Amino acid sequence: MNLDDDIALAHRLADAAGAAIRPYFRSGVASERKEDASPVTLADRAAEEAIRAILDVERPDDTIIGEEFGTKAGKGNRTWVLDPIDGTAGFLAGRAIFGTLIALLVDGWPVLGVIDQPIAGERWIGASGRPTLFNGQPARTRPCRQLSDATIATTGPHYFTDHEGEHFMALAAKTDYRRMVMGGDCYNYAMLASGHLDIICESGLKLHDWAALVPVVEGAGGVMCDWNGDPLHAGSEGHVLAFGDPARQEEAVEALVCHHH
Amino acid sequence: MNLDDDIALAHRLADAAGAAIRPYFRSGVASERKEDASPVTLADRAAEEAIRAILDVERPDDTIIGEEFGTKAGKGNRTWVLDPIDGTAGFLAGRAIFGTLIALLVDGWPVLGVIDQPIAGERWIGASGRPTLFNGQPARTRPCRQLSDATIATTGPHYFTDHEGEHFMALAAKTDYRRMVMGGDCYNYAMLASGHLDIICESGLKLHDWAALVPVVEGAGGVMCDWNGDPLHAGSEGHVLAFGDPARQEEAVEALVCHHH
Repeated sequence: MNLDDDIALAHRLADAAGAAIRPYFRSGVASERKEDASPVTLADRAAEEAIRAILDVERPDDTIIGEEFGTKAGKGNRTWVLDPIDGTAGFLAGRAIFGTLIALLVDGWPVLGVIDQPIAGERWIGASGRPTLFNGQPARTRPCRQLSDATIATTGPHYFTDHEGEHFMALAAKTDYRRMVMGGDCYNYAMLASGHLDIICESGLKLHDWAALVPVVEGAGGVMCDWNGDPLHAGSEGHVLAFGDPARQEEAVEALVCHHH
Repeated sequence: MNLDDDIALAHRLADAAGAAIRPYFRSGVASERKEDASPVTLADRAAEEAIRAILDVERPDDTIIGEEFGTKAGKGNRTWVLDPIDGTAGFLAGRAIFGTLIALLVDGWPVLGVIDQPIAGERWIGASGRPTLFNGQPARTRPCRQLSDATIATTGPHYFTDHEGEHFMALAAKTDYRRMVMGGDCYNYAMLASGHLDIICESGLKLHDWAALVPVVEGAGGVMCDWNGDPLHAGSEGHVLAFGDPARQEEAVEALVCHHH
């Protein structure tokens, strides 16, 4: 299996997910609460089923981990990680800034990632050693000369514990605070990859939330890490940072970490 | 002057603003800090100038109040209130969920309002005694049978003082909290008018931020008020509430107000 084949397949998977999702957008589709109280809809399930149906045929030996339908164990070192709708709350609120996330992990590390926005028709795809593409054109993060120039984003304070929120605020206060944006989920990482945001800081992200983001952000010139500045891994407790300009990482991690009580 | 003429003119104004804004979207346009530290760009200014140029010709006697260029005093009881880009931070972050706001006040009260999203090509227009239209089709808010079913939105906690934030949280805790969305600015009111959100609670809104929203929300079946449940007015201190289902207003105001320290 070569990377070109997997990239071509990833496009098919995203196309299938988008076709499953579009009829439900602004349709008044009901939502249910999952065990963790987060919302899920028929659109999430239909999109993940559409992706799995293709993978079952095209990559029968690969492991699949999906947000809605769990794990199907495979035989090798390849794992597809799926979040059919990242930003279900935003999807339900009628905003076209949610995304379908598709990642391919080899030996546990994401080598391919897709962020797809099926309403606006926007797709970012990143793959190891290649430039990230936005709708077929190279995407680049932007430089950020100092932390006080940075625009920071996070999906919302309700995803932080009180303690985490204090750490976030310690960092946010050093950025261009009045340009901070809330909401956005995976779409923030796409905007960072395209040079419209500088820093994202979040908590509570699971593997399916962040795996696809890493190749997209890093292939555009950015970097992702946990709140200690270490590479993301299963034990990161969902503490995710992204930087468009890697030169701001050290200072930002220090601002975040050094807020002790 | 009849309302039909003003509605036709409002479409022209929104068209002109959109044409001025689109070239700047995701262009890397610089932003400056205004006196209140909020960001402003060439796009904000170009859009307001485009609107004013038409009003100067078509309605030379009307007063104009614009976010970027202040007040031009007129002769009568009619005032156009303009916010060329509501959600400049979101605009700068590459999100197509900002809006151009255009309101016509007669004797100080908004009788016509437009929320225009020029990238997605979405326009909501509300006028006294008429159903709100979304791209020409009637928009309706949705029913909300109990507060615990409500999806609440606010642009971000950084727009609240600490004290206001506690009031907001007292209300938010009674809603379907995990479906809460942050960010969005005026776009949240458009989504409420189209039946995808139930409650919006914000602080710090100026006349140009809220005037256009009232005809849109109320023409779709919703209601807007201040944090005491009273009609919005110049002295509301920017405390704005919107409800898709007016039946939830009393209970929500009580939850918000009764959080005392």
